[in-house]
Parts: sequence; structure tokens; C-alpha cells
Amino acid sequence: MKKALKEKYELLKEKAFTIIYGRDTVAGKLFDLILLGFILVSVFLAIFESIKTVDKHIHTLLVVLEWMITIFFTIEYILRIICTPKWKRYIFSFYGIIDLISILPVYLSFFVVESKFLSIIRILRLLRIFRILDLVQFTQQANQLRKALKNSQTKILVFIYFVLVLCVILGAFMYMIEPHDKAFTSIPRSIYWCIVTLTTVGYGDVVPTTTFGQIMASIIMILGYGIIAVPTGIVTSEYSRFYRKKEEQKPHYPHRTAPTKYSHSHTHGYCRHCGTYPLPNDALYCHKCGAKQ
Amino acid sequence: MKKALKEKYELLKEKAFTIIYGRDTVAGKLFDLILLGFILVSVFLAIFESIKTVDKHIHTLLVVLEWMITIFFTIEYILRIICTPKWKRYIFSFYGIIDLISILPVYLSFFVVESKFLSIIRILRLLRIFRILDLVQFTQQANQLRKALKNSQTKILVFIYFVLVLCVILGAFMYMIEPHDKAFTSIPRSIYWCIVTLTTVGYGDVVPTTTFGQIMASIIMILGYGIIAVPTGIVTSEYSRFYRKKEEQKPHYPHRTAPTKYSHSHTHGYCRHCGTYPLPNDALYCHKCGAKQ
Amino acid sequence: MKKALKEKYELLKEKAFTIIYGRDTVAGKLFDLILLGFILVSVFLAIFESIKTVDKHIHTLLVVLEWMITIFFTIEYILRIICTPKWKRYIFSFYGIIDLISILPVYLSFFVVESKFLSIIRILRLLRIFRILDLVQFTQQANQLRKALKNSQTKILVFIYFVLVLCVILGAFMYMIEPHDKAFTSIPRSIYWCIVTLTTVGYGDVVPTTTFGQIMASIIMILGYGIIAVPTGIVTSEYSRFYRKKEEQKPHYPHRTAPTKYSHSHTHGYCRHCGTYPLPNDALYCHKCGAKQ
Amino acid sequence: MKKALKEKYELLKEKAFTIIYGRDTVAGKLFDLILLGFILVSVFLAIFESIKTVDKHIHTLLVVLEWMITIFFTIEYILRIICTPKWKRYIFSFYGIIDLISILPVYLSFFVVESKFLSIIRILRLLRIFRILDLVQFTQQANQLRKALKNSQTKILVFIYFVLVLCVILGAFMYMIEPHDKAFTSIPRSIYWCIVTLTTVGYGDVVPTTTFGQIMASIIMILGYGIIAVPTGIVTSEYSRFYRKKEEQKPHYPHRTAPTKYSHSHTHGYCRHCGTYPLPNDALYCHKCGAKQ
Repeated sequence: MKKALKEKYELLKEKAFTIIYGRDTVAGKLFDLILLGFILVSVFLAIFESIKTVDKHIHTLLVVLEWMITIFFTIEYILRIICTPKWKRYIFSFYGIIDLISILPVYLSFFVVESKFLSIIRILRLLRIFRILDLVQFTQQANQLRKALKNSQTKILVFIYFVLVLCVILGAFMYMIEPHDKAFTSIPRSIYWCIVTLTTVGYGDVVPTTTFGQIMASIIMILGYGIIAVPTGIVTSEYSRFYRKKEEQKPHYPHRTAPTKYSHSHTHGYCRHCGTYPLPNDALYCHKCGAKQ
Repeated sequence: MKKALKEKYELLKEKAFTIIYGRDTVAGKLFDLILLGFILVSVFLAIFESIKTVDKHIHTLLVVLEWMITIFFTIEYILRIICTPKWKRYIFSFYGIIDLISILPVYLSFFVVESKFLSIIRILRLLRIFRILDLVQFTQQANQLRKALKNSQTKILVFIYFVLVLCVILGAFMYMIEPHDKAFTSIPRSIYWCIVTLTTVGYGDVVPTTTFGQIMASIIMILGYGIIAVPTGIVTSEYSRFYRKKEEQKPHYPHRTAPTKYSHSHTHGYCRHCGTYPLPNDALYCHKCGAKQ
Repeated sequence: MKKALKEKYELLKEKAFTIIYGRDTVAGKLFDLILLGFILVSVFLAIFESIKTVDKHIHTLLVVLEWMITIFFTIEYILRIICTPKWKRYIFSFYGIIDLISILPVYLSFFVVESKFLSIIRILRLLRIFRILDLVQFTQQANQLRKALKNSQTKILVFIYFVLVLCVILGAFMYMIEPHDKAFTSIPRSIYWCIVTLTTVGYGDVVPTTTFGQIMASIIMILGYGIIAVPTGIVTSEYSRFYRKKEEQKPHYPHRTAPTKYSHSHTHGYCRHCGTYPLPNDALYCHKCGAKQ
Repeated sequence: MKKALKEKYELLKEKAFTIIYGRDTVAGKLFDLILLGFILVSVFLAIFESIKTVDKHIHTLLVVLEWMITIFFTIEYILRIICTPKWKRYIFSFYGIIDLISILPVYLSFFVVESKFLSIIRILRLLRIFRILDLVQFTQQANQLRKALKNSQTKILVFIYFVLVLCVILGAFMYMIEPHDKAFTSIPRSIYWCIVTLTTVGYGDVVPTTTFGQIMASIIMILGYGIIAVPTGIVTSEYSRFYRKKEEQKPHYPHRTAPTKYSHSHTHGYCRHCGTYPLPNDALYCHKCGAKQ
């Protein structure tokens, strides 16, 4: 009888696995939808709690709801550990850590009173959505974007490094020529002003007041005008190149039916256990954690 | 005699249809122009009514004119229903609903006093202009733009979704590290600040005041610098691809009957005096011998 | 003797023509340089006059210098009329009108006291620089830019028209949902706010204060994020297309020596008399006014 | 014995040269790292000194540290001159001048009290980092960027010149139509406003207050919308062209020995269990049979 119970338990575990990790069954999809709903509700609770006029009236309701959701997430977390064959790998995977982070601090807030950091942690739950959205077309597009941008990564880093050095030098220069009493009180503040200006954000909280300062600021702005063109140029040309290559690689069959390398249908981009990306298209097991797909 | 009357009526209906819906006759074009004028006047009336100093002086005039235009639009609406053979289709079409929406609320304002929403509704009449402009080259260009952008639609949606999640998380983070008394009073306000910053709008109504907050803001701005390049890159490369495809679809004649630099039309001439060919299209004098053409 | 005098006068006229209109002789280049200097001095005088603290101290000096420059420009204008064979065409050409506009109002200011408009008119003299710069490489590049942009002209107009309609409708909408006492006092002001926001300028003088207004503003900003990509996409792809075509049209000689169609050396792009552009590369006479080049 | 000493000295010089100028030995890399550290510390010292609250408490510490670093840099500078065979060339090279500039003013500050300019000079030491970074991939990418941008240099200069003339004329125009008491007090300030607006920075310190001024500002903003597309278009198309050329210059082998999707390096493996090929580079498990690798 014990064996039958264990067999039943194993069967249940497998079923739970299909529901919690899988996306192919109706139950699995429903589970994902419910999870999505709870995450959004949790985020809105954190937002509402930060608005004093709202929090004053329905504070108790917000707390109760938050606890309910946290308990649901805790149960889900435990189930995820139980029903996966490789629980160690899940715990230390990206999503496993996100899952733990989004519930643990709520319990810790019992002992430590600091509730300030709670809201940001609860909002980090938003990251969990990305796992759920894996199933839709969205992720494919995001992946294409990421691949296209990967080549320009180094160039953009070089560019950002250059902009930062420029901002430090120009900031120090503005600190030198502007009075220190009102706006440009220190070099970090001048650098902050320079970044605000070069990125064309322009808050207006720090503003040059002397004539020479305004001339310098004008030059910096026109400089920023030319500089803003560079990352756009990089991204655009890399992106175009990426697409041109992709089109050239397509085999030209006489009758256009051939599924190409990028036919993502029936493909699991991420490992469901550890989040490894990308899995080979024809992967049956994850090549990192060995989990069945 | 009754039959003759009905025939006459049918003829009149047909004529009205040509004028109201058509754009090929002089009367049809004139009707469109008058309609365009009335729409613009109506919009300007709504704008003037919102300026208190103007409204105080000529309130009665504005109201009278508004009523005149509304009655004109009402008559036009009724005529449109009468003279079209498929009136049902018209009523439930996009422009039919716009036409109804732009007159109905004016009559409703008799009973319901709330005139606040009237102005926005009268300004929606601007959308009617798009129908009138259908006849010019404008819409073709707009369609080309739309077709070119259609491919990048999903990618831009993914991008906006990603930016929104980023703004929520960064907003919550800024709420955590900034004091709540002045600017960052709640998470929604922090998110609002983050969107204002990432899009490089930078009003300056919400501004970080602590040193750490300003460092974070600087990082977000430089991030936004790189992020703003992405939609531009997407649109540009899709747009280029769209045009390249269009050009490739053009039939390639074996011998390129090379179009010369000035061959914009077929009106080139030889110089009557020295035989220079080709003359610029708009030449009044020969550019070689100076002889009058 | 009279004939000899007339001959001498004709010779002088021709010489003056070479100096004033021409750019090939040393004297002609020097004349252009002096003119450039005077224009810049005149502009700086106008700027200095507008600064009260400067104007208070050296007002007389500024006025005297201004009169000297104006008299110089007057003499130049008269000389230009005298020494060109087709003076009528010069007077009514673009640069002829600019030349007249930049001296006439100074004399008119004797009778009409309003000196407010004088400064802007004197600054319009800056436009005269473009004629002088014709000789350098600058104009060629500007022409290439203009040609490349000409194709995207209609598309950008359609785009701007669309943005304007959007701003009017969104502005009216914001007027509806925001209180009218502080920032959004009238629909034109709301439209102004909407343009400031969509173009990512973001002054911060008009700012939404209600929660719903800020949500709407956030949506408008993210919209503007996507919208700003469109003109860039249009310009970039047209520009790329323009260059690709240019490269394809180049004849491929075995040894790269062949001067192509675009070899602007020794070419006068503009007519020196009437400003017609472009002249055919091998033009000896202007094809519009018949003036010798 | 003297000869042996000299020989020893020469050997030492050579060793020092390898360490100071070279990057191939461990000691050379370590030296660069220490230098990098000292530069960053020096910059942070200058920044901390500018913050009054920090400077008040640890002023002596900052000064002592600064002197230590300056003495280190002085010794380094002297060593650089001694151990290089071509010391004249070093002294007058770009980095030689930067090295001198970054230590000399500190000593001069003994005699001249003005310490205001010291901070900017110490921050110029940041430029020395670029020499150290020469060794990494960074500079290659920066060079590629620079080459790609070199072609568009003239066009961007023409563009900036055009924008500046536009700003002067529009600024003077705004000065004319706005009251001079509050924001638009002089033409330079109006030009400053115009640059702030056209570059979409939009501080909000100078803002039009009259209705006509706001209409003009709106037009300028929408103009700036179109104008901002031009430098981006230039950079992007030049950049794309640069890369297309580079790719065309690559030799085309008759048979494309097609690199597979995962061929990032030569470390592919077969699955030890089922022979699947290729495995992803970082595979720990076979993605087909799940066997550990």
C-alpha cells in the first residue's frame, strides 16, 4: 500500500510539474494566468500602499491582501521545489532566486521593522512576469532584438565610457566658471548637470546663470545634439546588418515552404528549470541542468 | 405625375451623392473645401471659448456661430444618410460614427449642463479632415508610412512593455532612496518621474535631491540615452527594408535606358540656337550660349 | 574723349563686377572676406545693443559703427546695381531683396522711432553669409543634404500634420481633465504643453498636477518616444538610398581617375545674379536670367 | 668597474622601460593597474575637495593624499623621460604634455594661491586613462567608430553651422516679440533659449510668456523635431556604408565553408553518449539525450 501511495504521490508530483512548469495543458495555462493576476495585484497593492491618502483609508485591507498573496506565493515556491526532479538547480537559478526574494522579506518584516525596502522587493515580482510571457510571441521578438543588439554592445559601452569621461571633464570645467553658491555647488553636482544636459533631459534644477556659463552650456548642448546621433547610428546599422544577414541565410527553395532555422514554433527558448538561454532548437534536455523539456 | 416627382427626387439624390461623397466634380471639391473651412472654424471656436479673456467679450458670438455650424453639420449628416444607397453601412462606419459624435453632444448639452466635455468633442471634428484629405497625395504617403511601420509594430510593443516594467522597478527604487516629503511622495509619482526622465522630456517638477538619488538619476538618464536608440533603429531598418523590397519588385529591363540627370519629365529641349542638349526643364535661356529659348 | 571716358567707365564696371560678384581673383576673394567681416561685426553690434549693461556704456560707439557699416552696405548695394548688366534681375532676386532689407530699415528708423525691429533686420544680414560661403566646400555638402532630404519632404510634412492634429486633440483632452486655474488655463496652452511634451523639450512651465493628468502625460511621453523615431527613420533611409543610388550611377572605369558627374571643382552652383540653383555643371550662362557666369 | 655600473644602469633603464611603457609583462600590466588606481583616486580627491561638507572634515587628509599622488606622478614622469631612448619625442607628444600638465600646476599652486583651476587640471588626468586602456579591445572599437564618423564630419559641421545661424535669427526674432523684463532680457539670452529649445533640452529657466511667443516656440520645437533627425540620418548612413564597404573588401572564397550557428570558438564537442553534434559551447549536458558531458 505504501508503494501505491508513493506511486500516487509521484503521479501527483508529475501532474503538478506539468501544471506549474508546463504551458501546454489548459491547467498549465490557467495556472500561469492566475499567477500573472496575483503578481499584478501585488504590485498594485505596493503602489497603493505608497499613496498616503489611499493607505490611510484601506491600510488593513492592503495588508491582509498582501499576506494572502505572499502565502500563495510561498505555497507555489514550495510546490516548485517539491515537484521538480532537480530542485537544487531550481533554487539557485535566476527565477528561483527571484521567487525566493519576492517572498522572504515579507516574513523578515515581522522581526525587522524597516518596511521601506518591502515595496521595492514586492515590485521586483514584476520580473516573474517575464517567465510567464515566455509562451507568447513576445519573447521571440525580444530575443531577436537582443541578438541584434549584442554586436553593438561593445561599441555602446565604449560610447558610454567616453560620454562619462566627457561629462566629468565638462562638469569640472563648469564648476570652475560658475559661482558655487546657487546651482553648481560641487563637482558631482556639476557632473550631474552635465549628464542632464548632454542626454537632453534638461530638468532645470541646475542651470547656468553667468553669460560665459550659458555660452559653454550652449556648446555642450549642440555637442550633445551630435553625440545623441551616435548610439542611434550604431544600433540602426547593426540592426539592419542583422536582418540583411538573416535574409541572405534563408535557403531559397523553389516553393516557399521550407521552415528556416528561426522557426520558433514548438521551441522552448528558455530552460523551464534554470532559465538557460538559448536552448538548441531541437533540445529535449537542457544542456546546462539536464532537465527534461 | 407622382412617378415623375420620384424620378426627379432620385436624380436629385444621385446629384447630392456626387457632391457630398464624390471628389471628381467641381461641386464636390467645393463642398469638401467648405466642409474643411467649417471644421477649422468650429475647432477655432472651441479654442477661443476656452480662453477666458476672449470668451468674456464675444461669448454670444461664439455660441451663435457654434450653433450655426452644428446645424450645418446636422443637415450634412442627414443628407449623407439620405443620399447614400447603403445608409446602414455609412452610419456604422468609422467616419459615420465620428460624424454623429461631433454633432450629438451639442444637442445633449441642452439637457445636461456639463459643457466641459463639449470642447474635446468639437475638436474631435478634426478627424473628419482626414476623409477630406483622402483625395490628395497625402494619404498615399501616410499609407506607405503605415505599411512600413506595420512590421515593426510588435517589436515596438515589446519595447514599450519592457520600458514600462523598467520604469515601474526604477520608480519604486527611487521612491525607496529619496525622501517622501517633497518630490517623490508616492510610487506612482516616482514612476511618473522615471518616465519623464527616460523619455528625456525632463519637466523638472519632480527632481532628485539627495546625492545618491542624483547618481541613480544620472545612470537612468544614460540608460535612456541608449534605450532611445532602439525604437529609432527598429523603425529605420524596417523602413529601409520596406523600400528595398519595393525597389526589387520593380521589373529590371535588360538595357538600362539610362535616365539623365534632368529627366524629371518629357519636356526637355534642345537649344534653338546652338543645339545644346539637354536643357534644364525650366530653362528660359540656354546655359551654353545664353540665347533666349 | 567722351568715348574714351565711356570706355574707361565700362572697363571699370567690368572690373568692379569681377571683384564684387566674382570669386576667382584675389581682389574678389578679399572683397568677400571684408564683407564677411562687416556682416559679423554688424550682427555682434546688434547683439551688444540688446544687452543693457553693455549698451549703457558704449551706446554711442555702437551707433556710430552701425552707421558706418550701413553706409558701406549701401555703397556696396549701389555698386552691385551699377556694375551688373542685368540690374533688374539682381534687385528682384533673393539676395537682392536680402541686401535691400538689410539696409533700408536703418534709414527708415530716422523717421519711424520704433527701433525694436531694427535688431532682427540687422541679424537677417547673416543670410548674406550664405552667398559668400558659396565658394567653399560647404555649399556642396549642404546641397547634397538638401537633395537627399527632398524626397522625404512630403513624408515629413504628412508626419508633422499628423503630429499637429494629435497635439490639438490630446491638448483638448488634457484641458478637459486638468483644473483650469494653474497650468492648463486654456486649450491653446494645453496644445502648447502637448507640443512641449511630444517633442521631449519639457520646459516644466506647464505641468500636469492631477494623478489622472500625470498618467495621461506618461502615455503621451511614451507615445512621443515612438513618434520621434519616425522622422529619423524617414530621413535616414532616404539618405542611405540617395547615397546608394549615387554610388551605383558612378561609371566603373578600370583605373579610378574618371571625374564623375559630381566633381564640383570649377563649378558655380548658384547663378551669381539671380541665385538660380542648380546651374548645369558646364553652364557658361545662367539658364534663367542669361547672365554670364 | 664604472663600465659594469653603466651596464647595470642601462639594463635597469631597459627594464624600467619595459615596465613603464610596455604592457606585455606581468610587471608592466601591474604598473598600468597601479597607475589607473592612482588616477582614479586623484580624480575622486578633486571631487571630494569640491564638496564643502566633506572637505571641512577631511581637508588635511585630502591634501596629504593629493601631494603623495602628485609626487608619485612626478617620479613617474621623470622615469618616463629617463628610460625612454627618445625622450624629446615623449615630452612633446600628446600624452607627454598631458602628463606634464597634470603635475606642474600642483607645484605652481605653491606660489600662485588660485586653487580654483587646480581641480579641473587634476581631472584632466582622466585623459591619461585612455593610454592605459590602449591595450584592451576598447580602442579598436573607438577607432572603428572614429573612422566611420570621419566621412560625416563635414556634413555635421555644415549642419551645426546652419543650426547656429538659425538659432541666432530665431533668437533675435523671439527677442523682438517677447517682453524684455523677465526671460528674454537680451539677444544672447534669446539665442541661448533657442539652442536649449532646438536641442530639446528644455531647462525651463527661459520660457515664452506671451501667446504669440508660445506659438513661435511651438513652431521652433516642431522644427527641431525634424532637424534632430538630420545628424542621426547622416551618422547612421555613413556608418552603414562604412560597414558595407568593410564587408565587401573581405575576400569571397568560392565555397562558403559555412560557419554553423554555434561556431563561436573551436571548442565544440560531440556528445560522449549519443554523438550529437554540435553541442552548445557551454554544454554541461547533452541537449538530446541528457547525458552529462
